[in-house]
Amino acid sequence: MSPTPLHIGGLLFEQVEQLDFTGPFEVLSRLPGAVFYAVAKTKTPIRDAKGLILTPEYTLNEVPQLDVLVVPGGVGVNTVMEDEAVLEFTRRQAAGARIVLSVCTGALICGAAGLLHGRKATTHWASHHLLKELGARAVKERVVMDGNLVSAAGVTSGIDGALAVAALLCGDEVGQRLQLYLEYSPEPPFASGSPETAPEDVLKVLQAEIGPVVAERAEIIRRVMARPRG
Amino acid sequence: MSPTPLHIGGLLFEQVEQLDFTGPFEVLSRLPGAVFYAVAKTKTPIRDAKGLILTPEYTLNEVPQLDVLVVPGGVGVNTVMEDEAVLEFTRRQAAGARIVLSVCTGALICGAAGLLHGRKATTHWASHHLLKELGARAVKERVVMDGNLVSAAGVTSGIDGALAVAALLCGDEVGQRLQLYLEYSPEPPFASGSPETAPEDVLKVLQAEIGPVVAERAEIIRRVMARPRG
Repeated sequence: MSPTPLHIGGLLFEQVEQLDFTGPFEVLSRLPGAVFYAVAKTKTPIRDAKGLILTPEYTLNEVPQLDVLVVPGGVGVNTVMEDEAVLEFTRRQAAGARIVLSVCTGALICGAAGLLHGRKATTHWASHHLLKELGARAVKERVVMDGNLVSAAGVTSGIDGALAVAALLCGDEVGQRLQLYLEYSPEPPFASGSPETAPEDVLKVLQAEIGPVVAERAEIIRRVMARPRG
Repeated sequence: MSPTPLHIGGLLFEQVEQLDFTGPFEVLSRLPGAVFYAVAKTKTPIRDAKGLILTPEYTLNEVPQLDVLVVPGGVGVNTVMEDEAVLEFTRRQAAGARIVLSVCTGALICGAAGLLHGRKATTHWASHHLLKELGARAVKERVVMDGNLVSAAGVTSGIDGALAVAALLCGDEVGQRLQLYLEYSPEPPFASGSPETAPEDVLKVLQAEIGPVVAERAEIIRRVMARPRG
């Protein structure tokens, strides 16, 4: 007997951070009954921030009501936060979805769509201060759950978030089986996975590098929040 | 001043385990001077084991001598192990590469290409017993280095392996910066990331599920090793 279909969608856009998408895909596409929809405004292949081609197979209006919507982040978030078609899609799907999983700065897209008001959420450390501008209750944890919103911190945390979603929807045994399949017993080579643990110089260099994108993001959020609500 | 180009190639094939490829891509495409080549026999887009489309942009003969060759694994390995064109490419590139990074059962492709004789290596736990059939000195560690061969264990270990390669090639600070950028301070939800830690029932169910692919793999390796060497 086949399990009931579980409709899972992952949003794609130019300059997505591909691991925000592919990490959760790896986990969630393996859930019992999973049907995964790579979805975007058009089916034109997109490139991630470093040039990897990913190909959406569904447009925003072609996917059914999703059980799980994955919203990845990346540099491209700055454009998506002002893209009303994608925001409307996110809002509409979120209203009926069992889970919305934001990964990294995908949380900011959720925020621009109006999904964060009064809700606990997290995002990539370099944009974490922007959560409150979107009305969220910012939490410094790797995976944060509030109602049907599951938010994961930066990039790789999408794997942790997706495994948590797997367990939520299908039980701990499925989560454990996927973790074993993916041999997810990580051994990061350095104590450098967060601003709290990274060497100070390393943090400073990276902050300087990311700074302009984050500053632009702050400007965009001001515009988004000042927009009249429909 | 631009850094010296660092030519990095990642092999694609039908039914690749996409995270074996996309995890290292996420890390290595961000090395100073990195030029990343997604390479395959043809430029026809391929699908990973769960249907995600990935698009090679270079054929085997179009890439220059690589500094780093990433060899991912997945169900498709069973076909690639008998694909002489890919094996020849792997052998030829490995001879001049600074690093060959195998991820998951990508190690078996390296083995079929004759790269594992007498060398320490690891692979996904479910295929680990096959390493010795390929002449390797099988090691149960997450990331194993022997000469220019860096092998990572199952799927997610490609992230650890790629960070180790980043540090090897560009120094610890670059590795630390990338780990911080990717917010790689993992918190797996379960103690289930290896056969040693997973609940016994979970291990049994998964072994039964993977069993046929692994058994076929053992047959293929027997054929490959019996083949006359050129």
